[in-house]
Amino acid sequence: MKGFFHLLTTSQVRDMLRSFPRLDAEEICLDEALGRVCASDVIAREDLPPHARSTMDGFAVRAKDVFGASESEPALIKVVGEVRMGEPPWQGTVGSGEAVRIWTGGFLPEGTDGVVMLEYTKEIEPGLMEVYRPIAPHENVILPGEDCRLDRVCIKRGTRLRPQELGLLAGLGVTSVEVVKRPRVYIISTGDEIVPETETPPPGKIRDINSTTLSALVSMSGASPERMGVVEDSFEAITTACHQALEAGADIVLVSGGSSVGNRDFTVKVFQHVTGTDVLVHGIAIRPGKPTILARFGDSALFGLPGHAASCMVVYLIFVHFLINVFQGLPPETGLDFKRVKCGQMFPSVTGREDYVRVVIDPEMNTATPVYGKSGLISTLVKAHGLLRIPRDSEGFHEGEEAEVLLLP
Amino acid sequence: MKGFFHLLTTSQVRDMLRSFPRLDAEEICLDEALGRVCASDVIAREDLPPHARSTMDGFAVRAKDVFGASESEPALIKVVGEVRMGEPPWQGTVGSGEAVRIWTGGFLPEGTDGVVMLEYTKEIEPGLMEVYRPIAPHENVILPGEDCRLDRVCIKRGTRLRPQELGLLAGLGVTSVEVVKRPRVYIISTGDEIVPETETPPPGKIRDINSTTLSALVSMSGASPERMGVVEDSFEAITTACHQALEAGADIVLVSGGSSVGNRDFTVKVFQHVTGTDVLVHGIAIRPGKPTILARFGDSALFGLPGHAASCMVVYLIFVHFLINVFQGLPPETGLDFKRVKCGQMFPSVTGREDYVRVVIDPEMNTATPVYGKSGLISTLVKAHGLLRIPRDSEGFHEGEEAEVLLLP
Repeated sequence: MKGFFHLLTTSQVRDMLRSFPRLDAEEICLDEALGRVCASDVIAREDLPPHARSTMDGFAVRAKDVFGASESEPALIKVVGEVRMGEPPWQGTVGSGEAVRIWTGGFLPEGTDGVVMLEYTKEIEPGLMEVYRPIAPHENVILPGEDCRLDRVCIKRGTRLRPQELGLLAGLGVTSVEVVKRPRVYIISTGDEIVPETETPPPGKIRDINSTTLSALVSMSGASPERMGVVEDSFEAITTACHQALEAGADIVLVSGGSSVGNRDFTVKVFQHVTGTDVLVHGIAIRPGKPTILARFGDSALFGLPGHAASCMVVYLIFVHFLINVFQGLPPETGLDFKRVKCGQMFPSVTGREDYVRVVIDPEMNTATPVYGKSGLISTLVKAHGLLRIPRDSEGFHEGEEAEVLLLP
Repeated sequence: MKGFFHLLTTSQVRDMLRSFPRLDAEEICLDEALGRVCASDVIAREDLPPHARSTMDGFAVRAKDVFGASESEPALIKVVGEVRMGEPPWQGTVGSGEAVRIWTGGFLPEGTDGVVMLEYTKEIEPGLMEVYRPIAPHENVILPGEDCRLDRVCIKRGTRLRPQELGLLAGLGVTSVEVVKRPRVYIISTGDEIVPETETPPPGKIRDINSTTLSALVSMSGASPERMGVVEDSFEAITTACHQALEAGADIVLVSGGSSVGNRDFTVKVFQHVTGTDVLVHGIAIRPGKPTILARFGDSALFGLPGHAASCMVVYLIFVHFLINVFQGLPPETGLDFKRVKCGQMFPSVTGREDYVRVVIDPEMNTATPVYGKSGLISTLVKAHGLLRIPRDSEGFHEGEEAEVLLLP
């Protein structure tokens, strides 16, 4: 009457996901590059800074001229000019015993190798200063190339660009950068009982939840969501939608609903019949999420996700997010936060299956307790702080034992 | 010769920031609402689901009709029809001893109160089934309103909308939502020695780094960055730029550079002279970041940030991000991640000042070691994983002691 799943483990499925290649590169402007992943090493085309700069307001000097200076035995320096900010650098060489007034950020004149801070000096007659402290060579100075050196790798391939990397690139005059393309994720909801969330469902139907949740998750994972809406739960309709998505350049197609073994579940048949597609996974030893399907079409992936709203999101976090990272060339768990907690009560499970139990974490006690509710209830994920993982070889945790929680976004 | 700062502590400054009010609300579409903050409680206008639904493929029955059913003494049920998916609900009432074929997601017919899973049944003659397991009332059923109940608060005011909240709202047919406006953050870089990062600097000048870094940070904090570019380091030019920003509706104005006590430092004078502005802070007992300025103009804030690239980012993370959260009505440390680590070496400090030391964390050992480099070097933040906090009353940490690290974005 009913087929049975040949269940794979989480790590078997993840090994399959790891085999998908990184996506191609594209060149984009720096101001669009936040969160994107460098596709190749970025080489500095100049020194940053190009010239030694002062980090203080004071006097540029030769360090050896103020060697041993103190309150009781100050050094004397002769001020021969000023480095004016934003104007061409000081011309000529500063001689022994001479100094030039300098401001934070000013370029050090030729002949000087350090800056005496203003507060350790006193003018004793016009142009003549006493200095009360010594400096080491290069003190209060940023050397040429100290932030980044000419011809060196300043950002490594595979780096996700954060504000500080963008700042460094701006400083080096890099205005565009080669990044990995964003994975395009096409989202299909199936089920004859659902209508788009913008419609009022007639009796017997309910609104689509998964398209909205998945679309937001895809954005948070750094990929581009494309919503294809609600597709009739028939072999022809789902096949057509999958073909359209793949032809449009989908890297990932997500079909939620229709992934159990019931009569009306066409997703796996569709995946088996899309020409060139291999069904790799039909069922995972995980709860919730057992009826998950994974197929591969060239370098694109098709997922059949559970229709239940909470199961759908859990499978997304464990597998789809992982694949998006693989496509981006990032370590696959990037963006997932884990936390060690104490079990606030017993968490029973069975061996042979990995459980992800929705839990609330008490921030004071750092204890996790389950959020009760069926896997069809999206509200359980609104209430939960995370998913407590019970490994496949474990029968669960006793109260007080330590466990790992995947924190929800 | 030189003024001195009257330094405030981090917590004094944060108390001032807490006094800024939450911004006004605006109504936006659900598909733009990811990451936004609900400005008012959202009340469910209907039950979700509107009707009892099956969570399994099987037969909708009265639980009492299968009470005590077992392999040896199966219950007998008569199948009187099928709940077809997506069609109007079953008409009429299912009687005692009767059952209706139902699929996952189907609406339960009148008279039934639970679902027997397909795998615990067997057809013994057409329309007559044996049932081998009992069910409890409501077993394998989501009750009306079980995900969210009519007239209840489904999303509380102040909630940041994540994928799961958007999914719940979609399920309830909420297509637009009242959220707190995004803070508008205007970004000004000053200094006669800097040029926009898109230009080739002439001798004596370097490219602007802070506009790029700050703009990306503002986006990550959930606010809207507006770049005003590089402004000449003169009283008039900075005053004009601040006025323009405030008139354009800035909630926050960030002026980086020009916040030390040197001759050319106009920022604090500008803040003092913009009519209606109170300078609240001129100097914070923090390192890096001492020369930070904070002023208030009505309900808007003006920050003078250090010009040094790394200091600028640290002050942003500790104070500006905090204020953006206050403006959004979020707990002010939202979005900052902290981690307990072991000190991999001695971290000396002085009392009276809070230190944020750039550190690398060894993931195996969970030990932190400092990233050496001046606070003008943005590359130090590219290398660092976080900022190790040395509290104001501490002289630092010994090797092996525990400390808290603010993880960098």
